[in-house]
Order: sequence, then C-alpha cells, then structure tokens
Amino acid sequence: MKYSIITLFPNLINSYVNESIIKRAIQKERIEIEIIDLRDHTNYSHNQVDDYQFGGGKGMVLMVEPVVNAIENCWTNESLIVLTSPQGKTWNQNLAKKLSKEYKHIIIICGHYEGFDERILDYVDMELSIGDYVLTGGELASLVFIDSITRLIDGVIQSESHQNDSFENNLLDHPVYTKPVNFRNKSVPEVLLSGHHANIKKFRQEGRIINTFNKRPDLLKENKLCKEDLEILNKLKNRKEE
Amino acid sequence: MKYSIITLFPNLINSYVNESIIKRAIQKERIEIEIIDLRDHTNYSHNQVDDYQFGGGKGMVLMVEPVVNAIENCWTNESLIVLTSPQGKTWNQNLAKKLSKEYKHIIIICGHYEGFDERILDYVDMELSIGDYVLTGGELASLVFIDSITRLIDGVIQSESHQNDSFENNLLDHPVYTKPVNFRNKSVPEVLLSGHHANIKKFRQEGRIINTFNKRPDLLKENKLCKEDLEILNKLKNRKEE
Repeated sequence: MKYSIITLFPNLINSYVNESIIKRAIQKERIEIEIIDLRDHTNYSHNQVDDYQFGGGKGMVLMVEPVVNAIENCWTNESLIVLTSPQGKTWNQNLAKKLSKEYKHIIIICGHYEGFDERILDYVDMELSIGDYVLTGGELASLVFIDSITRLIDGVIQSESHQNDSFENNLLDHPVYTKPVNFRNKSVPEVLLSGHHANIKKFRQEGRIINTFNKRPDLLKENKLCKEDLEILNKLKNRKEE
Repeated sequence: MKYSIITLFPNLINSYVNESIIKRAIQKERIEIEIIDLRDHTNYSHNQVDDYQFGGGKGMVLMVEPVVNAIENCWTNESLIVLTSPQGKTWNQNLAKKLSKEYKHIIIICGHYEGFDERILDYVDMELSIGDYVLTGGELASLVFIDSITRLIDGVIQSESHQNDSFENNLLDHPVYTKPVNFRNKSVPEVLLSGHHANIKKFRQEGRIINTFNKRPDLLKENKLCKEDLEILNKLKNRKEE
C-alpha cells in the first residue's frame, strides 16, 4: 500500500510516522508513505495556499488550485482520492478493512482551518470523517486512516491479533488480564488461571457479549448471533428488567 | 487547561505537540501539556509495562500497576481521568465542549496493543473512543481529544471561527469558496460576490441544511429547526420524493 498525504504540515506527519508502528511497516516494505507539501504546488506568490472566503467571514479557506495540482502530480489509475472533512462519511472498521484490501494507492488530502473551497469535492472520490467533532486540521484524521488501515495489511502485525478486535462481528472485545494475579485485593477471574481451554473460550465469548450489551448495545445485531450467544444476551436482558 | 498524557510513546506525543496549533496554545499559556512516560512508573525489571494475557492468546496487555502508579503521581482533586479505548463512549463535539468548560486538568491514559488489564477501569472516570475503528495505540486518540478540546478554549482561535463549526445546532457547515472566481469552468455562486449580506446569510443557512440533508440526515433534529429552516428542509424532501 502506498499513501500520498497532501498537507500544510509535512513535519507533523513525518514526525508521527517516524515514532510509531507505521515506521515498522515501512521498514518491512509493507507500506510506503509519500508526504506532499501543498505549498510546493501553488502558483500564487509567497506559496499562498489559502485565502479569505467570498461573502465575508473569518478564517482561511484552502484554495482549489494548489490541491488539484498536488493531486494531479501523484495520481495514477490505481489511486483512491480521499479528503478529510467533518462532513464526510464516518470512518469505521469495515471501511478500514475494505480500503486495506481493495486499494494500492490512497491519496489523502488534509483539510484545514475554516474548510476548503467547495470545488475541491469535484476532484475527490471520498470525503471521510473520523468522527462527529471538529479538529484544527486533517492531519490527525489522515494518521488515523493510515494507522487503522496499515495494521490490517498482511505482515504488519500478527494476524491473530486482529481476529478478536473490537467491532469484529459487531461485538466489542472481551476483558483481558495480565500479571499480577492480585492487585489491591482485586484478582484475575479464576477461570483464566485454570488452563481449561473450553471454559476460557466460553468465558471470553460471554465477556464480548456482556461488554457490548453494557457499553455499546447499538452495535448488537441479534440476527447475526449464534444460538449460544443469543441465550447469553437474553439472560442479560432479563437481569436488567428485574 | 492542563493535560497529563500517560503513554508508552512520549516522543510521538511531543513531536506532534511541537508541530501543531497546540504549540501556539502552549505559548499563549492557554494550555499546559505534561507527557508522562509509563515506563518511568513501573516497579518491574527492564521497565516492563505489559505482558501476555492470562488464559492464553497473542498480544501484549498493559499492566494495571504502572498505570495506577502514573495516575497517582499526577492526580489532584481537580483531575478527570480518561482512558482511550475502542470500547469507550464515542467522542463528539458536545463532549469536547463539556470538557473544555468543566475541567481544569485531564489525565489521558493511552491504551496500547491488545488492550489493557481490565482492573485499570476501576481507576478511571471515563473510557472514551474517537470512533468505531481499531488503532495500534491510544496516542492518536489522545491527540484528537487535546486538539478538539483546545480549539474551543477561549483565546486559542478566534471565537467566531467556531460559531459555524460543523455539528453546531446539529447541522454541518455551509459550502465555502475562495479565489479564483473561476476554476476550470466552475464559478463561485454569484450571491457570494454580490455584497448583499442578507442574501448571503440566507444562502449559507440553506447550504447548512442542504449539506446536512444530503450527507448526514441522521444529525437533523426537526424539532430544533426554526420555521424558515423547516421550510427549506421540507422543500428538499419533496424534491427527493418527486
């Protein structure tokens, strides 16, 4: 996978990339990151890339021309062009999986300040948001895309590590425990120390359903649960009603 | 506002902070950032802070003891303790506003790898997620919290800049345009060049409703719209049905 990131803050992307798990993925040649400084693609003087909006109002708006120049400079017929924006489709684990499998080159344009000239939308394939909040720029969003996609690429982390990810099968992950067995009078559940694999497996599956029921009931899709899981869920519901 | 960030990757937080708008907020003394290296708070040899999970399975789990040590080292009775986790309550603009107003000190624990010992939850006030996807660690999530809260703090950015933020009043922002007036045969809407303030205001409010209706109809709360806005919305609905 190759990512081309079009940004006003190339150092910010670069410093993150060099300190994180992403660096390992680059060293293993699983991914490649191209950081494109938007200011290198403007025809305006003083490397101008943003300006006040027509109609009045505060804040600087990204201009269409430098963005389109930057896109056209790195685009191939295998590229997906993504724009980070709070108005975009909300990013989720299924989208991360889809992009990790279906694309070889993702161009990410980092939005900034008060927004971007609306005409930029004519040149992108997807407007994506990482959540319903406003950030000072699209750099964190672009790093979220890269991180969540990259960890799903073969050979980056052990594949068993993401089989039980939260959001797999619409369930959150189960609780986990590590040493010490006792910490300030609170102990690890005995079943996890028993060595009884079938019981541990059952305990963990129950943990997934309990976690999801308590923390994110909106994720539960009853028609996708097996008979045993549905029984656990119904017990939880009955207990809540009592 | 003071943030204390407990992390395994202090350099990653530090390099981001020094390249972003957050740096300006520090220089203006609107915020303070304390970066706490989790490895400085372990009693285990070789600075160990994570280990395999009880019951078997891949991946390293954050241990409870160093995290609790780190919390207790920076906690005051004004602190809110937040843990980043895909299982947490989903972060949004209202939470960002609430935290920016109600707290003076936020301690953020960055989750990592396969998760954290469940007993850590006994020592935190809030488990928070930035969205329904899995990241390699909590560092990006903690930066998202800091960025979205900090820009709402008085004196960090011009206050007019966030009156029209997306998600204000459950609406997305309106389209914006900047120079040039014409780009590859696509022009800025004439009303924005007219200088007619009332018409521009109306055009922008329509733009907010059209954007929200087209991109995020789930956000629209009809009972919170004024009469004029409701009329625009009903026109859009009728047009769609035709």
